[in-house]
Amino acid sequence: MLSFAVTLLDPGTDARACELVTPHGTVRTPAFMPVGTAGTVKGIAAWELDRLAPEMVLANTYHLLLRPGEERIERLGGLHKLMAWPGPILTDSGGYQVFSLAARRQVDDDGVTFHSHIDGSEYRLTPEAVVSSQARFGVDVAMQLDECVASTSSSAEVATAMRRSAVWATRTLAEARRIRERATWGGGLFAIQQGGLDPGLRAESTERLGSAPFDGFAIGGLAVGESRQDLHGAVAASAPLLPAERPRYLMGVGYPEDLLHAVACGVDLFDCVLPTRSARTGKVFTSRGELVIKHARFADDAGPLDPACVCPTCQRYSRAALRHLFISREATSVVLLTVHNLTYFLNLMRGAREAIMAGRYSRFRAATEAARLNGADESAPTGRGDS
Amino acid sequence: MLSFAVTLLDPGTDARACELVTPHGTVRTPAFMPVGTAGTVKGIAAWELDRLAPEMVLANTYHLLLRPGEERIERLGGLHKLMAWPGPILTDSGGYQVFSLAARRQVDDDGVTFHSHIDGSEYRLTPEAVVSSQARFGVDVAMQLDECVASTSSSAEVATAMRRSAVWATRTLAEARRIRERATWGGGLFAIQQGGLDPGLRAESTERLGSAPFDGFAIGGLAVGESRQDLHGAVAASAPLLPAERPRYLMGVGYPEDLLHAVACGVDLFDCVLPTRSARTGKVFTSRGELVIKHARFADDAGPLDPACVCPTCQRYSRAALRHLFISREATSVVLLTVHNLTYFLNLMRGAREAIMAGRYSRFRAATEAARLNGADESAPTGRGDS
Repeated sequence: MLSFAVTLLDPGTDARACELVTPHGTVRTPAFMPVGTAGTVKGIAAWELDRLAPEMVLANTYHLLLRPGEERIERLGGLHKLMAWPGPILTDSGGYQVFSLAARRQVDDDGVTFHSHIDGSEYRLTPEAVVSSQARFGVDVAMQLDECVASTSSSAEVATAMRRSAVWATRTLAEARRIRERATWGGGLFAIQQGGLDPGLRAESTERLGSAPFDGFAIGGLAVGESRQDLHGAVAASAPLLPAERPRYLMGVGYPEDLLHAVACGVDLFDCVLPTRSARTGKVFTSRGELVIKHARFADDAGPLDPACVCPTCQRYSRAALRHLFISREATSVVLLTVHNLTYFLNLMRGAREAIMAGRYSRFRAATEAARLNGADESAPTGRGDS
Repeated sequence: MLSFAVTLLDPGTDARACELVTPHGTVRTPAFMPVGTAGTVKGIAAWELDRLAPEMVLANTYHLLLRPGEERIERLGGLHKLMAWPGPILTDSGGYQVFSLAARRQVDDDGVTFHSHIDGSEYRLTPEAVVSSQARFGVDVAMQLDECVASTSSSAEVATAMRRSAVWATRTLAEARRIRERATWGGGLFAIQQGGLDPGLRAESTERLGSAPFDGFAIGGLAVGESRQDLHGAVAASAPLLPAERPRYLMGVGYPEDLLHAVACGVDLFDCVLPTRSARTGKVFTSRGELVIKHARFADDAGPLDPACVCPTCQRYSRAALRHLFISREATSVVLLTVHNLTYFLNLMRGAREAIMAGRYSRFRAATEAARLNGADESAPTGRGDS
């Protein structure tokens, strides 16, 4: 079991500053988790990650089961050893990846069978197997197996998947208890609320999960193609349903404005590929909005990506140099832009936490959003890109 | 003009420890220069390069002329700014790349015309233009334009190219003087000895160059496909011909054993893509020989790449983790293996310098080569690779 405490509630919103104590350290929230899918944050050496100092990082059970496999990870001393990262790790259960990446997928009430996107070999995930895998990885937070459906699914399909996921949550919890009784694992287990954009289904999902002693609750099934308005509406409706005395984790979200909105709704934890994946396509997050580094307008720009940023990329490299390295397809460009983008997201959540602790979260959010909106005019893409 | 001093001569060989003072710092030799072709050592952020602390780094005039171009580099404050590297930089003249990379190449006595391998646009290099470009980059050491010929060329072709290169060297030196009189550049100029594997042509080349006040001399036209025996023979014959009171630079070489041999012949400076390019193909240099990280035998190997290595990759990552990241094609793998391989080459030359200063270079060389040869049995590829 993890220990969790709400440190301070913002007076004007539902935002809160909390501490989640895990076997590998304390996670101060609100917090953004960089994504290290296959056992590394892409392009980031462990000592670089130390300096970025995220509260917790995320890895994917799906990818790690396929390669290098759970037996191997356990034999090598666990996922922390593999990643060379001594801090807290949360693993997604694989549910989302099975439904988005895997081939020839067959779901039944007991679990899901699929074929690897790497080599086609067959795998079977059950609620019990998935928590067992995560326990063998030695993670700090395991996620239950859930059934994810497309954003275009009918209400009946969403409801069926939600109810099945709730049954799986209960089975996962029972298995987690059995594992803990053998005292081989000290991590926590989070359940996942489903129900799409339907507040009634979200409420039913929460009721089905809410009375069981999970260590935390996630909001799943969002950021799958819905509009920003729908996303914000669903978060605003879903977050307050979850128990206030447990951490709340919004999965796979999102843009800075989405995080700031969700924090105001009482969400504590986030993960998203946006800062890392965007770095690889040359999209940069700044205090004055996004910019696309390959654009010709940056070719002679001697300034840093973000004058307000303290990351080493902004201390050392000009926009012109970063554009040159990006269009030259240099691997260094991935490293430099990833360090910058992660710094932006991590500091955004650090700033949110400080603001909550100072009782001024609404002002922090408004100022952050205004600067991004005003700055966007000058730093947004102009369409004059040369490649 | 650069200042150069021989600090100590090894009593048993021609090895020497020297200091070359440049506008951006002192280069203590023997020294290995990491290759930063297009303005970055591939995968290595500037702050990572700071920690690796090479004495000098190499960049390629050819690549930089094509992209981002000399006007842009000068406008942005020079190559040191572009690379975010405050230490000494040497640029190759582009001669070798024109002859190995460029399309539709036409050489005449005045220079060479070619088409960019990136976009096909036409460029013209002359001896004068090339040193002017390097001066605009603001490099610490510029190389003369030379004509490089294939290793399969006839003796007559090698002789013609050598004589043309010598004329170009004289023209380059005259242009460098004109540039320095305008006081816009404080870097030095190295001439390049050519002549293939023929000691007579090497001697003629040196005579043609030797009386002019170059700041250093390079041995060019080697490591282009000849056997190790031929390479070592040519270095042993060529190095002593070059003036002892100037730095000697062996271009594009090579394996650790080639460096150790050349140091014993009195060579001071080296550059090679071997440590960086090998990192991208999973080949690792260690004190006990080379290993290929993708091989299945490393899948459960919890040890470091090289137990004798102090680099952060060896301090944090197991061979098993590095194999997993490499076969998963993670960009992090490039970073980690490059940091390790560069550490190996840089420390090899640091060790050579220390040994020379202690008067025990021959023993250092013998012990280093013996450990690599003996260790190779256990760490060399077994052919049981799985990918």
